[in-house]
Amino acid sequence: MTAHAAASDTDLLPPCAERRQVVRAGMDGLHDDTDALATEVAIALEYNGISHATMLATPADLEDFAYGFSLSEGIIGQAQDLRGVEVAPDPCGLGIVVSIEISSACEHRLKERRRALTGRTGCGLCGVDSLPEVVRPLPPVQAGRPVALAALFNAQKAMRVQQHLHDDTGATHAAGWAGRDGTLHLVREDVGRHNALDKLIGALARRHDLPVGDGMALVSSRASFEMVQKSAAAGIDVLAAISAPTALAADLATRLNVALAGFMRGDRCTLYAHAGRFI
Amino acid sequence: MTAHAAASDTDLLPPCAERRQVVRAGMDGLHDDTDALATEVAIALEYNGISHATMLATPADLEDFAYGFSLSEGIIGQAQDLRGVEVAPDPCGLGIVVSIEISSACEHRLKERRRALTGRTGCGLCGVDSLPEVVRPLPPVQAGRPVALAALFNAQKAMRVQQHLHDDTGATHAAGWAGRDGTLHLVREDVGRHNALDKLIGALARRHDLPVGDGMALVSSRASFEMVQKSAAAGIDVLAAISAPTALAADLATRLNVALAGFMRGDRCTLYAHAGRFI
Repeated sequence: MTAHAAASDTDLLPPCAERRQVVRAGMDGLHDDTDALATEVAIALEYNGISHATMLATPADLEDFAYGFSLSEGIIGQAQDLRGVEVAPDPCGLGIVVSIEISSACEHRLKERRRALTGRTGCGLCGVDSLPEVVRPLPPVQAGRPVALAALFNAQKAMRVQQHLHDDTGATHAAGWAGRDGTLHLVREDVGRHNALDKLIGALARRHDLPVGDGMALVSSRASFEMVQKSAAAGIDVLAAISAPTALAADLATRLNVALAGFMRGDRCTLYAHAGRFI
Repeated sequence: MTAHAAASDTDLLPPCAERRQVVRAGMDGLHDDTDALATEVAIALEYNGISHATMLATPADLEDFAYGFSLSEGIIGQAQDLRGVEVAPDPCGLGIVVSIEISSACEHRLKERRRALTGRTGCGLCGVDSLPEVVRPLPPVQAGRPVALAALFNAQKAMRVQQHLHDDTGATHAAGWAGRDGTLHLVREDVGRHNALDKLIGALARRHDLPVGDGMALVSSRASFEMVQKSAAAGIDVLAAISAPTALAADLATRLNVALAGFMRGDRCTLYAHAGRFI
């Protein structure tokens, strides 16, 4: 079970967009047409043979997703803790199974976490089953060099050009990775914005030539609390969102030392946390 | 524990938007400003004293959310199965606890469902722990009268005017309910689009003067599979989204007899399922 072995199975996966018969409607009448719709597939994640979660996602870059979800959810601490990924259509034809092999230390920790979750006691927020699973204790991220605003704006424009699935379907979000100089290196797309960021984080972790402190993450969506938390868990110290952050996202970014930009519009944006990192 | 008793506690809840110091940045420099950010709060849902789920949401209309989540997740079959809701800040100051009392029959069913979930066997998709929780078996919705496109376009424009929290923060989605004639009756906003729809479904269930077959739901977001599933579970037969549906959403809408419109732009839209219900 290796990442290499998995690659061949992905040929059996569904395409990322499908054409459907639609009707275009306006006050001047109706007419038949076809439209490309983004595929949304149930993805079952298994760790060492045990089902962990099922989510709806775009059936592309699922090995990156395996790495990124595992890292950003704290199931593994580093890419090396993940020993193998196998991506295959499930035998029942219902979706896709992503089978992930993790180190025995990570498996042990995951089992402990699951055991704690079955407790289901407490007030619901301070109890073991809920808030600790929402807000995880994370150390502040180490800050990298300052980012020139011009580089940030250039990277965002470059990412927009690479959102091919979005251009086809209008239904997907993107997460991109650029160097501090604004050069775009990676783009990942998904019907879910959290999935797109997880895919990016995974792709980054699998590359050895893109140190996390030398770059910045861009997302085509809003910046919620979870987007900041995933970034911080991956060591990302600059996150730029096309749309608005929430107050909790801004507060968490301040606390975890993530420089947070929002409302990226052409050559303008708003800085919500650690504005001093942008020059 | 009644809905009435809960109302007073909501005075203690945080506001839906908070002002933060920000920096406006452009190629012409940086300047300090303030901005309204949408609040995002951890909401713990409890059923008959047992923690069920924690989600991040806008701290408004949480009784509607309790009804809507319970209905659209199939925890209750009808509003009458819900015996009371109490909304209160949790004692630890970490978020908000929504305590829901449901009938003993619904509690029994929920416990059975939880027991099945702990099985964690199967292929991960056909197994008891995953896909059945994602794709739930639902009967097709009963179709109401046809909807005039002009009424649909008017309702969408009316909803846009009512998205006050979005106007303030740029960070929230809305779900609205309009009569078949296009008259807008309800709007609910939330940082999460699923939450906004759940709040709308709950608000609708608590009103006795808005029969579900006489109206239509509008959402300011894309239409994913889950948005269609929630609508169908609530008996909604017309769902109109401002943005794109996914292929799975269109297929599910076709199967569950939900008329699905997307890409609502002024006086134009695209019809993805049961186009014949629009005239």
